[in-house]
Amino acid sequence: MEKIKGVINAIEEIDYSLAKKTQRRLDNLTKPQGSLGRLEELAKQIVAITRNENPQFKNKVIFTMAADHGVVEEKISAFPQEVTAQMVYNFLKGGAAINVLARHVGAKVIVVDMGVKERLKVKSERLKVKKIGLGTKNMAKGPAMSKEEAIRSIGAGIEVFEEEFKKGIDIVGIGDMGIGNTTSSSAIVASITGRPVEEVAGRGTGIDDKTLSHKIGVIKRALNINRPVSNDPIDVLSKVGGFEIGGLCGIVLASASKSVPVIIDGFICGAAALMAYSLEPKVKDYMIASHCSAEPGHKAVLKYIGLRPILDLGLRLGEGTGAALAMGIVEASIKILTQMATFKDASVSERIRG
Amino acid sequence: MEKIKGVINAIEEIDYSLAKKTQRRLDNLTKPQGSLGRLEELAKQIVAITRNENPQFKNKVIFTMAADHGVVEEKISAFPQEVTAQMVYNFLKGGAAINVLARHVGAKVIVVDMGVKERLKVKSERLKVKKIGLGTKNMAKGPAMSKEEAIRSIGAGIEVFEEEFKKGIDIVGIGDMGIGNTTSSSAIVASITGRPVEEVAGRGTGIDDKTLSHKIGVIKRALNINRPVSNDPIDVLSKVGGFEIGGLCGIVLASASKSVPVIIDGFICGAAALMAYSLEPKVKDYMIASHCSAEPGHKAVLKYIGLRPILDLGLRLGEGTGAALAMGIVEASIKILTQMATFKDASVSERIRG
Repeated sequence: MEKIKGVINAIEEIDYSLAKKTQRRLDNLTKPQGSLGRLEELAKQIVAITRNENPQFKNKVIFTMAADHGVVEEKISAFPQEVTAQMVYNFLKGGAAINVLARHVGAKVIVVDMGVKERLKVKSERLKVKKIGLGTKNMAKGPAMSKEEAIRSIGAGIEVFEEEFKKGIDIVGIGDMGIGNTTSSSAIVASITGRPVEEVAGRGTGIDDKTLSHKIGVIKRALNINRPVSNDPIDVLSKVGGFEIGGLCGIVLASASKSVPVIIDGFICGAAALMAYSLEPKVKDYMIASHCSAEPGHKAVLKYIGLRPILDLGLRLGEGTGAALAMGIVEASIKILTQMATFKDASVSERIRG
Repeated sequence: MEKIKGVINAIEEIDYSLAKKTQRRLDNLTKPQGSLGRLEELAKQIVAITRNENPQFKNKVIFTMAADHGVVEEKISAFPQEVTAQMVYNFLKGGAAINVLARHVGAKVIVVDMGVKERLKVKSERLKVKKIGLGTKNMAKGPAMSKEEAIRSIGAGIEVFEEEFKKGIDIVGIGDMGIGNTTSSSAIVASITGRPVEEVAGRGTGIDDKTLSHKIGVIKRALNINRPVSNDPIDVLSKVGGFEIGGLCGIVLASASKSVPVIIDGFICGAAALMAYSLEPKVKDYMIASHCSAEPGHKAVLKYIGLRPILDLGLRLGEGTGAALAMGIVEASIKILTQMATFKDASVSERIRG
């Protein structure tokens, strides 16, 4: 817990005065004021986060964290549990959607085994093994993990970030993999936001009506048995969370502590971001919501934190895919700031009337 | 007119059966079915347009067409008319927003002088001079151009596309520059869609309430004096259009005739797309709407044609900036299709339950 507290204490407010200064600079570029809408907002946010008036994204990193969930024994997912490990292998071979989209935007993917059930039979520079356990326990029958494991999972996320930070990170995206993790995330989001389970549970990888109503029942049972304390994110994590969700929460906190912008993927990353926000509300301004997931609970997350997503493309894959796509847009915003000519440079006349 | 008719006759329906086949292929990739939402839709559309099951965007081209508008003498714009020419110079020096965003997505910008008032004192490989005239006439006093000029402007767009097509084009984005051209576009959109002027006129480069209500009056006057025939796009173009808008309409038609997907930027390009759609509704399926502009008339265009924009970032700059950003997303979609591993390749288990 000391590590987590230390990181939280290191999180400062972003520099709002630099954001204002940046708007004046944007207003001198050869375009009508404000005409690049959200791109201008993003450029200002990046400057205010990094305290760098000429930010550049040399090192773009996506952390995709994987773990298994004991609650899958309740048959809440359309896919079998072994898919978590199989997808980790796929990530390492470069064949998954996140690999394709990360390459497209020039980002590196770091895969983290936070608690895949299988002991992975592979070594790779791109794989970090931070196993907290061989999957969580079934939250429908008792706590998913111990409090100590919850704390260790957040700490592992912090470690992963800090190890990579030494090599240089200019922007982070976060992504998840874990069969059963929308069930866990729905429970987290229902706990923290107080929304009804029906409103925050969705079809995950694509379950039908019958399985969805069963899934809702399982989540309710998990909440009833465990009674997570809504304003204690570590309690919530230990009772109904997942190791990858704890790890992702750690990445968010660590990014903010090092003034690195962090792009949140979809629903599962949203649940992790919600935990980070509950631990320290100042992290909000370091976050960029990449997209609005098709998973219904994601809207509750975005609303609760107060984030406006960049994209709305009906994505519901996870892995960091939405974060990667949004990273391309965020990078475009800082290129606008740093590469466009001013009215003066380009000898373009300024506005003449209201 | 023969050239335009020839191009229209060459436009075939896109290959819907290939789109279906592509969905089956997408369903075999290592992700839950449909979980990449709009990206999957885009990939299918690109295959159906190009009739190529493994499309690649080697040559990405953005055509930014510029022209002046006589209606600026009515003082409807926040910027002076000379900005049109000044921005063309800026495009050629690489300092404008479209240059930055096109570089970001690896696209080439071809600037076309369709009728800038000034005779440009510069030669560049990236500038094509297809001047139809030195700006249009003031549409508030009579037709903006002759019918013959309207036909020539569409023809020039076709020529520009065909010249570039010889060098290879895999995807096109279109953009505009022309002080006063939201006024002209509002008149076009009101004519063709039948929506009230108040609903399709906006603040352009950023005019205040007073200038906006004056602008609305000017558009109404132009429509009253000229009485454009709503189902005759060439009549509409000649009476209240612009040379760049005619040129952009030509690009859309020519792209479709050569099975090249065409990404439509914002409101002005939307007006050009609306004309192309009125000339030949089959072009719709070749179009990709890049974003939803802050300019209110753009929604009317998208609704009338039946297009759903990819991005909604509050952009209102033009030049092709939204098209460039969307091009990055569209390219991501075809990389998903062509680069992801299948369940079989990656030995990932398939779904087990509904």
